[in-house]
Amino acid sequence: MRSFKLVLAYDGGNYAGWQIQHNQPTIQAAVQTALARITGRPLRVVGSGRTDAGVHALGQVVSFESPTELSATTLRNALNAELPSDIAALSLEETATGFHARIDATAKRYRYWLVDGFVPDVFRLKYAWHVRDRLDCAVMYRAAQALVGTHDFRSYATRWPPSAGSVRTIYEIQLQRGTGIEANLISLEIEGSGFLYNMVRTIVGTLVEVGRGAKDESWPAAVLEGTDRRLAGMTAPAHGLYLVSVHYDDRAAGSTSNEPGT
Amino acid sequence: MRSFKLVLAYDGGNYAGWQIQHNQPTIQAAVQTALARITGRPLRVVGSGRTDAGVHALGQVVSFESPTELSATTLRNALNAELPSDIAALSLEETATGFHARIDATAKRYRYWLVDGFVPDVFRLKYAWHVRDRLDCAVMYRAAQALVGTHDFRSYATRWPPSAGSVRTIYEIQLQRGTGIEANLISLEIEGSGFLYNMVRTIVGTLVEVGRGAKDESWPAAVLEGTDRRLAGMTAPAHGLYLVSVHYDDRAAGSTSNEPGT
Repeated sequence: MRSFKLVLAYDGGNYAGWQIQHNQPTIQAAVQTALARITGRPLRVVGSGRTDAGVHALGQVVSFESPTELSATTLRNALNAELPSDIAALSLEETATGFHARIDATAKRYRYWLVDGFVPDVFRLKYAWHVRDRLDCAVMYRAAQALVGTHDFRSYATRWPPSAGSVRTIYEIQLQRGTGIEANLISLEIEGSGFLYNMVRTIVGTLVEVGRGAKDESWPAAVLEGTDRRLAGMTAPAHGLYLVSVHYDDRAAGSTSNEPGT
Repeated sequence: MRSFKLVLAYDGGNYAGWQIQHNQPTIQAAVQTALARITGRPLRVVGSGRTDAGVHALGQVVSFESPTELSATTLRNALNAELPSDIAALSLEETATGFHARIDATAKRYRYWLVDGFVPDVFRLKYAWHVRDRLDCAVMYRAAQALVGTHDFRSYATRWPPSAGSVRTIYEIQLQRGTGIEANLISLEIEGSGFLYNMVRTIVGTLVEVGRGAKDESWPAAVLEGTDRRLAGMTAPAHGLYLVSVHYDDRAAGSTSNEPGT
């Protein structure tokens, strides 16, 4: 048996999420079907985490084992030929035996795209949340910094009570507004040790309330301290969310890069 | 009567092009319908040029006249409420009487997006032409410079013979490859006094032959000198093409900007 690390990008718009479900199109099912066709035998793949229905990925990491004798490059090119056009195999490499995409992950990075103001972005209808109010990014950024660090994030999770512990560490939250023709596009990036269910989308929904002036800059911190989901803002829609990258210790799968190859 | 200059962005994917056609969805028809509903009377709008079926716009300029008493800002916001979600009114301003979006245009800028290599860009399936060969941008750029200047471009037009004269001036051709996660994305921008039918797409199709090594760097210049369309490369697909901006002399409509407003 050989162990592999696969990095995927996908447009989640046509899928009921990562995880296999009966009678629903899922990313996991598409990848398993393609790999089974290529290697000639059924197999199971493990994702770094479940992305929800409609959530996209720029660098979802997947582990699987196979006795295939194909080279990693041949496998990757065959995957791109077999996979639906909205799922791409960015890279594929052989790893140390036992690499597990979920258990071995040490950090994840997400991006959320917002478009603000009266003018829609016609090319991002399916890729960003359009908030018609003007958002104050400076205030949102300052408010967000209260969430950085190790906290009990149960106020920002929608599965209640959280099944495992609800303490997580957020390493950074960045906010950037585009320029020129992208002046209405706001990118929020958040990196952490792990995230509770809907945590990124709830953080975004809460910060948007601050950005549009409906809530005070100190509110996200108060929500955090209150440890009660009913205090937080709405869950931002799935179609603005991207799993950007998954990070591993060197001893596990090595590279954290998700740049596309040739 | 008041004269207006409207700047539009649209995703051309669902339209049979700019110009009104019987029983086909077109941008012009959508804009006229929306404006008629807002102002209460039928009217005709003039585009800076006809974009073909599937071609997108980041800054198509449109002129129209109306006796409406609504302010330009109110009109623009009403347009964004009335228009289909894949057409956006970026800006709207009142202009000097008689402004004509097509006749007064002095230059136009187009962008063409290419994705090269084995890995598809899942978020640009409808927005870029995926060429599976690796493209050499440096060679493409050098080859393209032979087309800059004033020439008879009939080799690069697909309507044959060109109805009006086929001499045009290209002011510049720029090529840029993305970095990081966009390392497979190539943007080709071309600005000129005007363009013959399918001229940008034929230039792109010809430069791609050079970029993938099928033709020599000197070939696009030879095609130009041959003044025969059968010499050129294929017409690149419509879905990678964007009308970026239309330029006017100050005496006409003023601004060349197409940045979105609040």
